[in-house]
Amino acid sequence: MKLYGWHSSATTFRVRIAMALKGLSFEHVPVTLRWEQSDHDQPDYKAFNPQANVPVLVDDGAQINQSLAIIEYLEEIRPEPPLLPRAAADRARVRSLALFVACEMQPPTSLRVQRQLAARFGADQRALSAWQLHWCEIGFTALEAQLSRSAATGTFCHGNTPTVADCFLVPQVYTSQRPVVNADLSKWPTVQRIYRSCLELPAFERSLPQNQPDFESPVGH
Amino acid sequence: MKLYGWHSSATTFRVRIAMALKGLSFEHVPVTLRWEQSDHDQPDYKAFNPQANVPVLVDDGAQINQSLAIIEYLEEIRPEPPLLPRAAADRARVRSLALFVACEMQPPTSLRVQRQLAARFGADQRALSAWQLHWCEIGFTALEAQLSRSAATGTFCHGNTPTVADCFLVPQVYTSQRPVVNADLSKWPTVQRIYRSCLELPAFERSLPQNQPDFESPVGH
Repeated sequence: MKLYGWHSSATTFRVRIAMALKGLSFEHVPVTLRWEQSDHDQPDYKAFNPQANVPVLVDDGAQINQSLAIIEYLEEIRPEPPLLPRAAADRARVRSLALFVACEMQPPTSLRVQRQLAARFGADQRALSAWQLHWCEIGFTALEAQLSRSAATGTFCHGNTPTVADCFLVPQVYTSQRPVVNADLSKWPTVQRIYRSCLELPAFERSLPQNQPDFESPVGH
Repeated sequence: MKLYGWHSSATTFRVRIAMALKGLSFEHVPVTLRWEQSDHDQPDYKAFNPQANVPVLVDDGAQINQSLAIIEYLEEIRPEPPLLPRAAADRARVRSLALFVACEMQPPTSLRVQRQLAARFGADQRALSAWQLHWCEIGFTALEAQLSRSAATGTFCHGNTPTVADCFLVPQVYTSQRPVVNADLSKWPTVQRIYRSCLELPAFERSLPQNQPDFESPVGH
């Protein structure tokens, strides 16, 4: 398996965690994702991947975009250990937590959205930081309410083993802790507790951006 | 089953289509989603649904957020007719198309993002229309490339029966045709052809915003 991605991409980070939890190894293909220059903008990358994003998993002839599609695929071809519970309603709860991160928290803060804010509205680093903090604040406040009131929440987002929801939560929390955002995690104690529980597991720790071969120190945005 | 949603919400529209394709009926609970006033902003709605969004499916005690989580749930409890193909790689392709719409096309144009653009950057209707058109253009251009080059594309996004990908594509195209966006669909002939094929099916036609009991004529944004 080849995984096209980037150390600091939250969406790639999700897939790294899922692969590590399932004990799958992969060849890492770096796709640079920097404010000033991204491989995504290059015609040859778009010819390879029309969605012009990361991550992309290439496995046995299949080329798969979108972190959740990749993780559902891994769950189907390598069911153990499961990252989704068995009962339909529980699976729905886990997917709903992951999708809240994927559809409502991460997208407004993506590099391509931030670049448009700068180009169209003149947003500077201070405005971009405030913008990212806003989506963190409303997002984690919502997740805290959803997680803290449910008996289904355990050591992790759902019960006492990690699921797809944790694969999405951890990169989002990690991203919120970068100096340019610097969200105060203590406002969301359940989110903070689950984040810490996850990082005690080698699969999460090994998947951190700073533990990737293409790591670079962040320089803003 | 109860479906909390709104006629013009693209995310609710996705679930209506999936339910209609599966022959499932539901009680519709309107949650207003207007520029000037939304039920999402109300404390009692947030107490019910911490994610403060639509759609929400309530079924047999389960309360499920996020359109894709709802549709995957419906696929599990009511497998026929299937909205996902059988093979893992094909399922991944369908999910990746749906998730591209869900994570990259719709979110930057959501009501909550547009409101922030107005509040933080003074974006007026003209700027908001241009913003929405931008995400339509890059999104449909990517989808056109992905769909047109693949032998897996048929009458619909994947083969000759509708799948989850079509449940996501149709509301996104529909939204792009509103007067405030008015994207030129002829630029994306495969997308246009699939959209038309879908609307020939009663399940899609019946799920259109104008065929819902809470329909109101659009007034901008």
